Amino acid sequence: MGDLGEVPNKQIIFRDFVIGFPKEEDMVLTNGIAKSKVPVGSRAVLVKNLYLSCDPYMRSRMSKPISQSYSDSFTPGSVIIGYGVSKVVDSGHPDFKAGDLVWGITGWEEFSLISMPEALTKIKYNDVPLSYYTGILGMPGNTAYAGFYDLCTPKKGETVYVSAASGAVGQLVGQFAKLAGCYVVGSAGTKEKVDLLKNKFGFDDAFNYKEENDLNAALKRYFPEGIDIYFENVGGQMLDAVLLNMRVHGRIAVCGFISQYNLTQKDSIHNLFCVITKRIRMQGFIEPDYRPMYPKFLEFIIPHIREGKIVYVEDIAEGIEKAPSALVGLFSGRNVGKQVVLVAPE
Amino acid sequence: MGDLGEVPNKQIIFRDFVIGFPKEEDMVLTNGIAKSKVPVGSRAVLVKNLYLSCDPYMRSRMSKPISQSYSDSFTPGSVIIGYGVSKVVDSGHPDFKAGDLVWGITGWEEFSLISMPEALTKIKYNDVPLSYYTGILGMPGNTAYAGFYDLCTPKKGETVYVSAASGAVGQLVGQFAKLAGCYVVGSAGTKEKVDLLKNKFGFDDAFNYKEENDLNAALKRYFPEGIDIYFENVGGQMLDAVLLNMRVHGRIAVCGFISQYNLTQKDSIHNLFCVITKRIRMQGFIEPDYRPMYPKFLEFIIPHIREGKIVYVEDIAEGIEKAPSALVGLFSGRNVGKQVVLVAPE
Repeated sequence: MGDLGEVPNKQIIFRDFVIGFPKEEDMVLTNGIAKSKVPVGSRAVLVKNLYLSCDPYMRSRMSKPISQSYSDSFTPGSVIIGYGVSKVVDSGHPDFKAGDLVWGITGWEEFSLISMPEALTKIKYNDVPLSYYTGILGMPGNTAYAGFYDLCTPKKGETVYVSAASGAVGQLVGQFAKLAGCYVVGSAGTKEKVDLLKNKFGFDDAFNYKEENDLNAALKRYFPEGIDIYFENVGGQMLDAVLLNMRVHGRIAVCGFISQYNLTQKDSIHNLFCVITKRIRMQGFIEPDYRPMYPKFLEFIIPHIREGKIVYVEDIAEGIEKAPSALVGLFSGRNVGKQVVLVAPE
Repeated sequence: MGDLGEVPNKQIIFRDFVIGFPKEEDMVLTNGIAKSKVPVGSRAVLVKNLYLSCDPYMRSRMSKPISQSYSDSFTPGSVIIGYGVSKVVDSGHPDFKAGDLVWGITGWEEFSLISMPEALTKIKYNDVPLSYYTGILGMPGNTAYAGFYDLCTPKKGETVYVSAASGAVGQLVGQFAKLAGCYVVGSAGTKEKVDLLKNKFGFDDAFNYKEENDLNAALKRYFPEGIDIYFENVGGQMLDAVLLNMRVHGRIAVCGFISQYNLTQKDSIHNLFCVITKRIRMQGFIEPDYRPMYPKFLEFIIPHIREGKIVYVEDIAEGIEKAPSALVGLFSGRNVGKQVVLVAPE
């Protein structure tokens, strides 16, 4: 901290609204300045950011606001915001004190002044990697938990298919499916990821969707009796093929459509009639609606991590300057596991 | 009944599998013969058919069997089968006796021998028109009840949109929505039907979808704050426009896609991303899954009919020879209300 109460603050600035695939140049690294104390009389907290989270939903915030958007767009010329793990440096809020570790929405910068710290979650368990609070112990973890257990209502012996299965959410859904006694198959886009699914996460089987000319045929091969539960992360042609392969009374939890986010003309769906013939329940969801479940989720997941019953793979980019390329990489599937950016060690 | 134990039996024979829109010529009237008694030792019942029901789902039974089909296809050269109201003429089953009135699956003919009469429902209330057991008191009634109350989980003050709203199911959904304290708008394809919706069934508003060039704009006009519940009977472009106009946590009960049944290339859906952004629950269903609810439904609906709180409009074609044109008419929307065929007075 400088004598003048100011510190250098590297920041990632959102340049302008994006059409199509985002590029690194849509985000600009600048050398800003942060105050080293919260303003006198404020209830804000000042945090030092340790880890930043790269999440697919952030793509929607890079587009010009439309009425269909469920999260506010980023402001051109302002710092990118997203989930992160941070350490409180100074606090004007009675619930937080210097030294506290927190996770929640922060800025893509070294230091952030958070004016409504009530939205932050204090970190209770730190015998696990702190970066986990961007993934398995953060929003993606609660997403997998709520989406799988609450929306998919799994029963022992059912068949489960997970797309984008090695990602931040998918790898957990697959492991939850095994805990629930289901048969689970995942798909991903490289051999390395397919190997992880089978050998690290315990999926019963897995395939590389990029090597399949006919997704319908591929799904028939892995699910000759059909799919009871589809955890949807990708959308588009994959969803259309899955619809043909669902079983009667199947459930589809619609978590994301990552294949569609960068398309100006979305893929069209032709097989929605299966929703009637197979009496399918398809439900879209976003994690914030399930935030009240988070404490219950945390008590469930922590022992599983400690006992090694649930594992988690992260892809950690070191240094805030790597954040733009890390985020962009999500949309070409370059990340292997949950994409995190290490800003500073604790 | 003839002295030889045989009676003339007009029948509607299914000619061959249909591609595209069905035509009257796909069904052929023949003069067959029926036995006037059930075979000795059989547990079958012989019924005289009074009313036959024309239902959109029958289109799927006219197509060549495909794995996605949820009901068996008709057999070329055999009599058409469907719901009807019948009177027992002779019975080998201890639960049925001559004179009993029943509704359930029967043949499109004057007399049918029903080998598994357990699937028939005995008619308990006959102070209402018997034809109602093909509609408001039969499969379509239970469809509206299960679909609206069970899948749409309506709350007072919510907004409800019903397509094909003057049809066998839609007219009931609109009236149920009013009973539930909802604001309900329906669409149909003629001025006469729109008038019925507003003046007979008590919809808050209604429009003729054929007069709208832009369905999205039409829905925005009727639902400036969005749609909480969509009772889906038509599919295709209407569904795509509805998705854009759903509210957060909206529910879509997918009852039918009548606009799509005769298309060899189904309309494509482009706005499914709304399922995530608006956290929509979309659920397909078919009535047989809800048959166990039928007794409860009956006790609910009968007093409403007697007290005039629920009304029902039927379109009755007189004579079995009219059955093919009545069925075909469903797919051009020629019927006004529930399409029934009167075969014989009680």
